[in-house]
Parts: sequence; C-alpha cells; structure tokens
Amino acid sequence: MSVHFKTATIIGVGLLGGSLGLALKERKLADRVRGVGRRQESLDKAVAVGAVDEVSLDARAACEGADLVVVCTPAAMVTSTLDMIQPACGPDCVVTDVASTKAEICDHARRTWPRPCRFVGSHPMAGSEKFGPENACSDLYEASVTFVEIGDVLDSHTRESVKALWEAVGSQTVDVRPSVHDSLVARTSHIPHIAAACMAILAAREGDVQAFAGKGFRDATRIAGGRPEIWRDICLTNGRAIVAGLEDLIHDLSEVCDLITDGDASGLDALFADGNAARQRVVSEP
Amino acid sequence: MSVHFKTATIIGVGLLGGSLGLALKERKLADRVRGVGRRQESLDKAVAVGAVDEVSLDARAACEGADLVVVCTPAAMVTSTLDMIQPACGPDCVVTDVASTKAEICDHARRTWPRPCRFVGSHPMAGSEKFGPENACSDLYEASVTFVEIGDVLDSHTRESVKALWEAVGSQTVDVRPSVHDSLVARTSHIPHIAAACMAILAAREGDVQAFAGKGFRDATRIAGGRPEIWRDICLTNGRAIVAGLEDLIHDLSEVCDLITDGDASGLDALFADGNAARQRVVSEP
Repeated sequence: MSVHFKTATIIGVGLLGGSLGLALKERKLADRVRGVGRRQESLDKAVAVGAVDEVSLDARAACEGADLVVVCTPAAMVTSTLDMIQPACGPDCVVTDVASTKAEICDHARRTWPRPCRFVGSHPMAGSEKFGPENACSDLYEASVTFVEIGDVLDSHTRESVKALWEAVGSQTVDVRPSVHDSLVARTSHIPHIAAACMAILAAREGDVQAFAGKGFRDATRIAGGRPEIWRDICLTNGRAIVAGLEDLIHDLSEVCDLITDGDASGLDALFADGNAARQRVVSEP
Repeated sequence: MSVHFKTATIIGVGLLGGSLGLALKERKLADRVRGVGRRQESLDKAVAVGAVDEVSLDARAACEGADLVVVCTPAAMVTSTLDMIQPACGPDCVVTDVASTKAEICDHARRTWPRPCRFVGSHPMAGSEKFGPENACSDLYEASVTFVEIGDVLDSHTRESVKALWEAVGSQTVDVRPSVHDSLVARTSHIPHIAAACMAILAAREGDVQAFAGKGFRDATRIAGGRPEIWRDICLTNGRAIVAGLEDLIHDLSEVCDLITDGDASGLDALFADGNAARQRVVSEP
C-alpha cells in the first residue's frame, strides 16, 4: 500500500517526532508537516533542522484539517493529548502514537474515541541514548521494527495507513494486541532496564569497584544510561506487566540462591545451559 | 621488576593457559614451557599452536624443577591441584593461578602451604566466549587487569614475581584481599551473569518474543552466552558473596515493585537517576 498525506501533524518534536518529520519530508510522504510542542525553543530547533514546515503551541488547533496525526509526546502524556485532540480530528484523519507502552493508551482510546476507532497505537523500536530534535535523523526508523495495534473496534483503513506509514519510513511492522505487547516488552526491555539500574547501584555501593567492571558489566548495564523520565513513565504506564515480570524474576533469582546454598552443581549447570539456550532462541531472527 | 623463568609449568592448557604459554614464549620470559592436561588431545593442540614446548599428563611430575607454576584449571579444581603439586614445588618456585574466584582458593593455600606462602593467587580479567588452546593468542592479556592477592603470610619475593609476570605479558596488576575481590567481582560480574541468564529465560518463557528483543536486550543478556560449567564453578566457589549480593538485588527489585505499585513517580525518577549515575561512576576509569 502506498501512502501519502496532505497535512501531517506531529505532536512532540523530540528525537522520534523530529526524525519522523524529516523522513516524511525527505521521502515526500506528506505535502506539509506541522510540529507541535510545549516550548517554542524545541519548535525552533525542529524548524532549524528541517523536520517541520510550520509549528504551533496548540495541539488541538494543529490537528484541524490534518489527515495524519502522530502523537510523539512522552508515554505518560499520550492519553491526555488524545483527549485534547479528539474533537479536532476529522473523519478521514489517521491518528497514531509512538509510545513504548500500549495497553493503557489503546484501552483509553477504545473507551473514549468513536467507533470504528481511528486511533491505532504504534510502537517503533527506534531511538538511542540521544534525544531532542537536534539529534533527529531521517533514517532513524530504517531497519527498525514497529509494533502496530490489532483489535476488533479499529478502523481498518486507519490501521492499513498506519502500517503503510511505518513501512514507508523503513520500518518492518508487526501486528500485536496491546496487552501482549506490554507483557513481552516488559520482559525484553523494561525489566532488563530496571535490573541494569539496580545492578549498577549494587556495584557502586561497594566503593572502589572501577577496576572490577569489565566488558561484561559495561554491556550488561549499558541500558541503565537512559533518561530517567522516560523510564519512570514506562513504569507508570506499564506497571502491571512489569511487576508481574519482576515477581517472576525475583522468584527465579531466589531459586538461584537456593541452588548455590545447596551446592547443587547439576542444578546450576542446567540454569546456565537454559540461560544460554533461551538467549539464543530470543535473539535469533524471527 | 624484570622477570625470567627457566621452566614454566602451565597446568591446564585452555584459552587462558595456552595464551599464557604463547605470551611467555613470544616475549622470551621462559626458557621452556611445560603444559599439563588431563587429555592428550588438548595437549597435542597446545603443542600444535606453539603454546608449550613439552607436555605431561602428570601435574606433580611436571612441577619438579619448575621455577614458575601457573594453575589454569577450572576454578573448582584449583585447590585439589594445589594439594597435589605442593610437595613437588621447590623452595624457589613461584606458584599462582588464574581462577576468577579467590577467597576459597587463597584460604586453602594459606592453611595447607608452608609459610611464607609461595602460592599467591591471581585473577586476570581476560578471556572471551571462545575457549580451548586452539583459540589461544599471545596478546590475550594485553590491556587487561589482573588482581593479585595481598596478605600477611605471603612470600614477598613470590608476590613480586607474580605481579611482574602479569605485567610482562601486558596486564595491569591490582592488589586486593581475596575476600574483597570476591565480593566486588560477585557484584560486577557474577550477579550480572546470573541475572542475564534469568532474564533470557524469563523472556523465552513467553514464546514468540523475537521481534521484541532489540539491541538493549542483546547487550543486557550477552554475558548469558558463557560456558555453563565455568559459571557453575564460579557459583560453587564464590557462593557466599554471590548469595549476599543476590539478596541485596532481590531486595532492591522488590522495592521497585513497590514504587510501581504505589505509582511513586518521584521515587522512580530517583531510582533511574541513581542507576545512571552509579553506572557512570563504576565504568569510569579508576
């Protein structure tokens, strides 16, 4: 499916929003890109890097007449943004977001938007430790995977347009129910991030530990370098799945303590063989 | 201090032992390198790659007349190897090991060897996912850090020789008490490894999770790819420090569950800011 928009409105022009604007313009997927932000300074930067053609501090007004709206705010602000813009989004407007948690946002939209629902949630797995429109790049979504919501009440044309949008900027789309998405991403991203933060704190508590931190420690804790506010929002919007997964992890770690205390060599052998095989299975190409 | 040995005996000619043999020969640090193994096949490989000059299946006999003995067996076999070779090690023989846990081994040597003790434990932080003499390389220890035991009953000449040995093959030495070593390495290496194994298992349990495993997951779980028997031995020989650290980690993860369940935004902000700062402190140059 080829895709083209007359007016694309991007709410939140940070790394993800700014990069989407650049990609839309570079690939001529939209005639005009509007950027919405809370601070004029960010909007000025987004214009300066060429990510948007026009800017606004008023999200609702910027959605009037748009045929594509992409909410790129922090995850915790998506539902309130959707409430604000819903009256302004016309009957042919395709609306999506980029938040890395989906169930809370998609459930909210299903409850509050007219049916068939023209908001279809997305989660592009793209980004880096960098942030802000000044780091935007038109190929940020190339070779990424984007999860796109599936569900009974979604407008099918909107869903196809959202998928076509992400594919047009270089991403591979994967259909997923929001609750399944959140449970899996809790285990592959959110919990590893929380564990990395806790392990860095655990090591630092011991004082002069620098000489002991080799490549393994660097790799294992690299993701602890992310922005605190993003991870706070992820925890707040995906709390149920994260706590369920953390409880499983705590249970498994307690079992390892028992294996060690019991000197259970074959149990420990099995644990590390299982870990090795599990990782190979998970990181193999789908 | 410059260092030179007439006869260096390396017990266990895997990746670490084989690489040490290559480095000793290439840098002309030993006139003759003897390799000891349990299987003729490994010994033949060690000869083929040029890591050793002569080989033996008898560790005790191979220590007779040696002025350097380096025990490169798996960690769980070091104490029994020391018991076996101790009568054969002459009064001028420098004896060390390469195991990545130190307290159990060094405590054992202190109890069983004559004083001043001519066994001084080492732990070079070198290696890779590869193993076996066929992967040995003469520069394995270049730019590594090697921990060298400090303690009251150690023979000071032996200690200086052990430090000089590691420095001569390109490593930077750091003096440390065995119990401190084990506690720190539990937190920077052993626990991250156990957590990586458990997180890989946690993710794999969910089935079709491949699309969800991005770079963060790959980095965070890379160390789960190690050899099960090595990590089993580490758990068995450093159990006390690992269990103590794991209990701290479990406690901290439980607190994160509480923060999420309580919707404590500022507590979560603080957690991720602390994690970020802790990692920066730990991975900065000492």
